[in-house]
Amino acid sequence: MTKSKPSLTFQPVLDRIAAEIGEMPGRGRPAAYIPALAACDPDRFGMAVAEPDGTVYGVGDWRQPFSAQSITKVFTLALDLAREGDALWEHVGREPSGNPFNSLVQLEYENGIPRNPFINAGALVVTDRLQTQTGDAAEALIAFLRAESGNDQLSINEAVAASESAHGDRNAALGHFMASYGNIGNPVPVLLNQYFRQCSVEASCADLALATGFLARRGIRADGTRLLSGSQAKQVNAIMLTCGTYDAAGEFAYRVGLPGKSGVGGGIIAVVPGHCTLCVWSPGLDERGNSVSGVAALDRFTTLTGLSVF
Amino acid sequence: MTKSKPSLTFQPVLDRIAAEIGEMPGRGRPAAYIPALAACDPDRFGMAVAEPDGTVYGVGDWRQPFSAQSITKVFTLALDLAREGDALWEHVGREPSGNPFNSLVQLEYENGIPRNPFINAGALVVTDRLQTQTGDAAEALIAFLRAESGNDQLSINEAVAASESAHGDRNAALGHFMASYGNIGNPVPVLLNQYFRQCSVEASCADLALATGFLARRGIRADGTRLLSGSQAKQVNAIMLTCGTYDAAGEFAYRVGLPGKSGVGGGIIAVVPGHCTLCVWSPGLDERGNSVSGVAALDRFTTLTGLSVF
Amino acid sequence: MTKSKPSLTFQPVLDRIAAEIGEMPGRGRPAAYIPALAACDPDRFGMAVAEPDGTVYGVGDWRQPFSAQSITKVFTLALDLAREGDALWEHVGREPSGNPFNSLVQLEYENGIPRNPFINAGALVVTDRLQTQTGDAAEALIAFLRAESGNDQLSINEAVAASESAHGDRNAALGHFMASYGNIGNPVPVLLNQYFRQCSVEASCADLALATGFLARRGIRADGTRLLSGSQAKQVNAIMLTCGTYDAAGEFAYRVGLPGKSGVGGGIIAVVPGHCTLCVWSPGLDERGNSVSGVAALDRFTTLTGLSVF
Amino acid sequence: MTKSKPSLTFQPVLDRIAAEIGEMPGRGRPAAYIPALAACDPDRFGMAVAEPDGTVYGVGDWRQPFSAQSITKVFTLALDLAREGDALWEHVGREPSGNPFNSLVQLEYENGIPRNPFINAGALVVTDRLQTQTGDAAEALIAFLRAESGNDQLSINEAVAASESAHGDRNAALGHFMASYGNIGNPVPVLLNQYFRQCSVEASCADLALATGFLARRGIRADGTRLLSGSQAKQVNAIMLTCGTYDAAGEFAYRVGLPGKSGVGGGIIAVVPGHCTLCVWSPGLDERGNSVSGVAALDRFTTLTGLSVF
Repeated sequence: MTKSKPSLTFQPVLDRIAAEIGEMPGRGRPAAYIPALAACDPDRFGMAVAEPDGTVYGVGDWRQPFSAQSITKVFTLALDLAREGDALWEHVGREPSGNPFNSLVQLEYENGIPRNPFINAGALVVTDRLQTQTGDAAEALIAFLRAESGNDQLSINEAVAASESAHGDRNAALGHFMASYGNIGNPVPVLLNQYFRQCSVEASCADLALATGFLARRGIRADGTRLLSGSQAKQVNAIMLTCGTYDAAGEFAYRVGLPGKSGVGGGIIAVVPGHCTLCVWSPGLDERGNSVSGVAALDRFTTLTGLSVF
Repeated sequence: MTKSKPSLTFQPVLDRIAAEIGEMPGRGRPAAYIPALAACDPDRFGMAVAEPDGTVYGVGDWRQPFSAQSITKVFTLALDLAREGDALWEHVGREPSGNPFNSLVQLEYENGIPRNPFINAGALVVTDRLQTQTGDAAEALIAFLRAESGNDQLSINEAVAASESAHGDRNAALGHFMASYGNIGNPVPVLLNQYFRQCSVEASCADLALATGFLARRGIRADGTRLLSGSQAKQVNAIMLTCGTYDAAGEFAYRVGLPGKSGVGGGIIAVVPGHCTLCVWSPGLDERGNSVSGVAALDRFTTLTGLSVF
Repeated sequence: MTKSKPSLTFQPVLDRIAAEIGEMPGRGRPAAYIPALAACDPDRFGMAVAEPDGTVYGVGDWRQPFSAQSITKVFTLALDLAREGDALWEHVGREPSGNPFNSLVQLEYENGIPRNPFINAGALVVTDRLQTQTGDAAEALIAFLRAESGNDQLSINEAVAASESAHGDRNAALGHFMASYGNIGNPVPVLLNQYFRQCSVEASCADLALATGFLARRGIRADGTRLLSGSQAKQVNAIMLTCGTYDAAGEFAYRVGLPGKSGVGGGIIAVVPGHCTLCVWSPGLDERGNSVSGVAALDRFTTLTGLSVF
Repeated sequence: MTKSKPSLTFQPVLDRIAAEIGEMPGRGRPAAYIPALAACDPDRFGMAVAEPDGTVYGVGDWRQPFSAQSITKVFTLALDLAREGDALWEHVGREPSGNPFNSLVQLEYENGIPRNPFINAGALVVTDRLQTQTGDAAEALIAFLRAESGNDQLSINEAVAASESAHGDRNAALGHFMASYGNIGNPVPVLLNQYFRQCSVEASCADLALATGFLARRGIRADGTRLLSGSQAKQVNAIMLTCGTYDAAGEFAYRVGLPGKSGVGGGIIAVVPGHCTLCVWSPGLDERGNSVSGVAALDRFTTLTGLSVF
């Protein structure tokens, strides 16, 4: 997948980051709420950078598929926004939540309208709407990710999806609670099935860096067609920066300074608008659910390259 | 069912109350969240008083079955308490909630332990535990109510139960939310089915006044066997006084001054410990979900008889 | 003060309770937030019963003055209710709070109207209004307590008041917060001074049992004049039962079954309407701020005499 | 103050924006909580851009002093951060709040530690600490603003400060509440006086654009000395982007895409790191407290110049 390029390349930067991360003490702990994630080795580390033209650089386990989890929320958001536009914003907000990522309190304050598309409640709303638009939200997601990454093997791990479902009472509560406010259109069990399957997508750093490319290309897909308007792409980047890393968006903003979205599988995607997209993976999490080595690697990347937005 | 008694009788008091209520302006509105309740005539009114020996006095529509709704929470509480005793209190509290009756906020504060058995979350926990104890909580409830009232026709209105289920997203959210804290033992759909069937019991004022008799007899059932210890009966009465009328327990305490429990079907049961039990029914509700004429009738009863606990 | 009476007397009951309490392990800990209270000996114990005619029975340290603290909230409530009647209820509610006793959350939900007169916020509102009515709320309180108890020495401990003030930031926050909603009429520093002085009243079990007498006499003061209407006295009793013991009102209701009000000085007053009033004191508190030995003694009292309201 | 520059200039952009704003319907309403702000004319509009070398471009009322209000929170944050560094972050967080800007709820959740330095509670903490560091926080602020803007007339409007104080119960509540958690070091009345004076600084768009320059120069002051490290300047920019516009940070991020901070006086400052700083003023506010014309003008600026961070 890596194409040759004459001059400037990200490869030396990635190699240096991987070396530094390898010497870093403290990797955090894998997510423990389902067995499939708890079994991950926290010493795994991979990182990829994709340029707008599709060139990819990588280091470590950058071709190893892992559980994308909440990273997929970015793609379902974009897919739904592309279909229904601003109508989506009547059903979910765009402001930071200031509360742990699956709190019900704010949802009750605000009559069943989640604060943003990246807290679980908001992602459920987006999936519900994409399901209505497409008839199979998880399938639409897979099709998009395969097309953008060029990887036809990219798929859902059904065992993980089943495990998510078996431990899914809190998401079920969120779904029914929003349904009680009329903010869910599909039957809640249908929605939950779609949601848990979407969380269980497995993809590599290379796949996800490529799939995120449209956010560096101001809305243009890999094949040159337009997914989002430039303004919509900017919106998604802004929401990633302010809401993309659970209750640590502020800290991520000043340490890394890029729009990013993390998942409890240990992955993080990030965007340097106009320049490149990144994906890093390492399963050990900090207490707020973000990959310890992943945040550190992105922090090093912006420091070494000067590519922060601030 | 009314037996003759030589001296003192509640009949003149009931007749006088019914006359006064008939002249009272403003009946409130029936509950509107399901069609079966919304269709009730707010001018209906019935009231019954049962003495500890089973003598019943009544007035108006006192033999007309109505939807018992949350009144049944008293009976499932007593049935579970009789079976598992203080172990129940590890799963539900006994303090007033200070919040609207199905708020999720306090539940999140207190790690999935509801404040008391009469808010919806607490009643779901009690039903869940009675289901585990009996294998069919709603059936156990019906058997108890039939035995105490002597009315073999008393039953569940399955159409109402189906309607409750169709509008049951908020209770489903509560069930799943508590399950996420490990405070629900049965599958949530099984629990909800039991819960909605229990809410849909239809019984008359006469039936419910008689069925409440064990709380005036310090725990003794109609057939002389013991359901609860004296101390447990006192506990249930205390919880009724402090938590029995949604967010109006304080107002009910000083207006009526009796342990009571209301339902959105327009019924209210009340206890004068050692003396008698009451049930009043009128479908028009105030903004906090209690029968307008029902509260007024009980207020008049304690004023006329001096039988308040204060 | 103890008068002779021919027949029934509470003295043997009190003697038995004192003996049992003396053998009870575990006394709790005195309140620690100000030095004057923290220094109290948790082994002190006193109890008094006053009959409606002024007869008082006592045991242990029943004549020892102690810091009345929140017990005074009952008297300021009655004094203000006597002056302005139902107008008070536009500024403070009458429902249990369901939250720790000085939470700001509910106050924010409900636009600066406290849930009831016995949480700190509510007591501040009552003091503010009594201050407006009298020009010196603490003085009006002292005058009332002296008149009812017949004890001219009863007074405010100014050192305790100063210490309360020095540790009074949370009450200052409550005062200013309610002022921001327009629910405080006096300058907040004036209000706080009155409030802390009122909390610092020192009185004995005998004094407080006598001063509570009007609640057993349906509103009639010791000198035969009327303070409250019968209905208002019933209201105060009902609020004591549902809100009088911080976050343990439900537990107090079923263990003791009497209207009661506790203070962090270790005192508790209680009412058996029509029969008698009680005050018990022992400085060791449980984790919810109620006297451990005090609750136990009242529990024994209602068990031994059968005088519970349930 | 405007220096001549040979080539590229911001002047035509500013002129075009002013023309467009002049034709825009709907200006919002001035803040109404104090008379001095309520009297402002919503048709006033000014805007200034300052380059890192001190060149300033302006349009409209860009030299007219206005009430800076919460914009000053950026400068007190920088001044304190310069003095005590990371120690500050033990007393205030750096995450978006997700709640209206002076809510007490989250403060209670998080034991008196405000979420970020730009909500009122957080700004009170910063002022308290700067007061401890300097002995006169408001004076330190004025000295800094005069030095950076080169305007010796820049000062506090004492009448506005007195008016803020007279309507300051909610901030007083916040101060006392945090003091109860030990998170305030100065006497609360001293802190409040400093805080209200700081809010009442009057400065023009030119003054504030110049004073913000250190954030475009990675921490370097106008005289070439260092105020903040590059990393600290990046931190402040990140906090502005995620928390700078009350409950509209997300919307501001995707509409404007720059670190910004607004005040209820109608001003907004913004930073294009490495390029320039801006200040816009127009007193009419939207329902979330941000200047309607100000946000629109910044939105146009980033659209016309392509200088958004996204």
